[in-house]
Amino acid sequence: MATKVYIENLSTHVGENITLQGWLYNARSSGKIKFLLLRDGTGVCQGVIVKAVVGEEMFNRCDQLTQESSFKMSGTVRAEQRAPGGYEMDVTNIEIISVAKEYPITPKEHGVEFLADRRHLWLRSSRQHAIMRVRHEIIRSIREFFDGRGFTLLDAPIFTPAACEGTSTLFETEYFDLGKAFLTQSGQLYGEAGAMSLGKVYVFGPTFRAEKSKTRRHLTEFWMVEPEVAFNDLNDNMDLAEEFLEHIVTSVLKNRMPELKVLERNIKFLENVKRPLPRVTYDEAVEILHSKGLPFEWGNDLGGTDETVISEQFDRPVMVHRYPAAIKAFYMKRDPNNDKLALAVDVLAPEGYGEIIGGSQREDDYDTLLARLKEHNLPQEAFDWYLDLRRFGSVPHAGFGLGIERTVSWICGLDHVRETIPFPRMIYRLTP
Amino acid sequence: MATKVYIENLSTHVGENITLQGWLYNARSSGKIKFLLLRDGTGVCQGVIVKAVVGEEMFNRCDQLTQESSFKMSGTVRAEQRAPGGYEMDVTNIEIISVAKEYPITPKEHGVEFLADRRHLWLRSSRQHAIMRVRHEIIRSIREFFDGRGFTLLDAPIFTPAACEGTSTLFETEYFDLGKAFLTQSGQLYGEAGAMSLGKVYVFGPTFRAEKSKTRRHLTEFWMVEPEVAFNDLNDNMDLAEEFLEHIVTSVLKNRMPELKVLERNIKFLENVKRPLPRVTYDEAVEILHSKGLPFEWGNDLGGTDETVISEQFDRPVMVHRYPAAIKAFYMKRDPNNDKLALAVDVLAPEGYGEIIGGSQREDDYDTLLARLKEHNLPQEAFDWYLDLRRFGSVPHAGFGLGIERTVSWICGLDHVRETIPFPRMIYRLTP
Repeated sequence: MATKVYIENLSTHVGENITLQGWLYNARSSGKIKFLLLRDGTGVCQGVIVKAVVGEEMFNRCDQLTQESSFKMSGTVRAEQRAPGGYEMDVTNIEIISVAKEYPITPKEHGVEFLADRRHLWLRSSRQHAIMRVRHEIIRSIREFFDGRGFTLLDAPIFTPAACEGTSTLFETEYFDLGKAFLTQSGQLYGEAGAMSLGKVYVFGPTFRAEKSKTRRHLTEFWMVEPEVAFNDLNDNMDLAEEFLEHIVTSVLKNRMPELKVLERNIKFLENVKRPLPRVTYDEAVEILHSKGLPFEWGNDLGGTDETVISEQFDRPVMVHRYPAAIKAFYMKRDPNNDKLALAVDVLAPEGYGEIIGGSQREDDYDTLLARLKEHNLPQEAFDWYLDLRRFGSVPHAGFGLGIERTVSWICGLDHVRETIPFPRMIYRLTP
Repeated sequence: MATKVYIENLSTHVGENITLQGWLYNARSSGKIKFLLLRDGTGVCQGVIVKAVVGEEMFNRCDQLTQESSFKMSGTVRAEQRAPGGYEMDVTNIEIISVAKEYPITPKEHGVEFLADRRHLWLRSSRQHAIMRVRHEIIRSIREFFDGRGFTLLDAPIFTPAACEGTSTLFETEYFDLGKAFLTQSGQLYGEAGAMSLGKVYVFGPTFRAEKSKTRRHLTEFWMVEPEVAFNDLNDNMDLAEEFLEHIVTSVLKNRMPELKVLERNIKFLENVKRPLPRVTYDEAVEILHSKGLPFEWGNDLGGTDETVISEQFDRPVMVHRYPAAIKAFYMKRDPNNDKLALAVDVLAPEGYGEIIGGSQREDDYDTLLARLKEHNLPQEAFDWYLDLRRFGSVPHAGFGLGIERTVSWICGLDHVRETIPFPRMIYRLTP
């Protein structure tokens, strides 16, 4: 039999007799010629079947191929600019593997719940392919960024004995004779232990929030990458974050342009993601809101609309830093110049995509951290190991977390995070 | 201030005046000279402090530095073959950041529970550094392998509505109004959906087993990578597995030799991990056991001792294939030449490290798969989406799973998997 080839490699097989294996994406017929569009997961290729070439029996056999039927198609590859993907096959043989039953997803419009119920099939569409490949490239480029800069991967535990940020939004499970275990909301505290050990680390794994939020930005299960660096202060943290975002977006633009085209993504905003990113203080952000006539009160957290209005003032992601300490987590270090402010930074994506990064310099003083735990009514015993990081050679350190799904949503230009992950989990969806 | 440098980059700063930041790993004094061993997470460097150079005040100040105290050390870098890491610093300035309280982990022997309770500090030791860096390299090389071969990453869900392999060893959590969600034991079924969509995929994430196994090979939370390839049969699957293992081990030998030295790893067995790996059928494996006088009964699963005896016959990992179908999962395809056998393959690591890979060709016939579900008393409704993969363009496909922690354990030559992951979770351990 002819060599089996993936469609993504067709360019190196022009003029050769090869075999493609895949599924019927589309078909049309024009008298004595049939056109079969085969997809194999790496691309699509049009096969041209001429009755006079393959004979009547094989020509008619093609009519059995319903949408998503699996088959092999052999013939000679030809460059053809007008064809999707740029190549066509002059088919000499068709071998049917499995005829698909009537496929539920058709070119007509389907409701999103109908598609979500069939996510395992919906993933076969070119749009979902494009999103999954952009997601893959984002994750690949993230690891490349840290691996290339001397960071060590530190897989934080999923089962945790205590909550990082309050207990109201935790999933819990019975854990043998040890009582309850909670599913992690963030690997940061463990990342801090890692940074004191390995200097520069990144945590990368799924995180969980049992929030009853039914918005286009919320999943109950989402992936997060969290770098943590010993001896970094807030400015170093912002430097790292902007270099990081530039690297991700540059990688996607370099390696996934065909996918961005499928998604009809306007890449103008992506091409702007170059250092330096604008940096505004929370105070300046409040001034922006007031100048736009919004009745925002100092001390509140930024809402979705506030974030959109602020980000609209800039042509690329904007970093907002030095938030009121009262609305930020206990572990954030206070600004030495103003004890009411935390050395925190959020990065807001353009085009209304909101916060994609949240980070801070961490409190590194033992007594201050202990006082914060008490202020937040957190049990000292559960955090005793975390306090150890301040007992034994404490150093300034900082880090941030980037949410993968929100980043995919922004870079792909999606309306809802449910398309950013293969099998999304939301408060009303646990299947398939 | 002098340029801040990481120890791993010292080779490019010889003769320069630089600053190192880190923690005191060790110190000794000889009259008018002190030697401070600073670790910064990327390596260790010895600073030489001469009283006549730095003056009495600074010389004496060094005495405050207890083990794991944090400090900055500035001076000129010098190549010194006898020094750990190959470089030394002639120190001109010491800046103390934080004096550590009495450090609980000392050079003397500690019990493993004592160390495990202080895992956040234990991670600072050179041995744990080495393991974490080998772990990182294993994971990096795994992703490099698949990314470089056209696979798409497919993150399978952690929350699942049903069990992949029985329900007795599942962690469960309340999931809003949808009842219970179970933590995934394997992303394979979702990987199969991905392979039908994207051709070649790999799932890579944490998996969970609530097994009450208190052995040196069991964690309740462990990471697994699971490639799945459309149109692959069992032989293709074994070809992929052996190429994959060769790539991982070659990468570690190439990039982490200093760490293997720290671990005093005998690398003879690692250097042997070259294709082709030996392949024996289950039947042949049973013959080996009988020839060694073991009273093994055909049809049983291989136990730890059996695996060790079989692997001792080979100088590299061995693939055992075609197991009795009765002891394997419902989704495995039967051998067309013998319906009692499943087209399964396990890869056994040498030196008694046991199974590190388990895989199979999958059942691709709708009616057969449906019958298997019934035989295993699995609810058809929960697997209806999985059956869809056979309704709509079913193709032969195969895949396998590699357990990260067992692989780290084997490559590092460890006695117990608890050291293979930053914060291990076992039936009797959920902290820190």
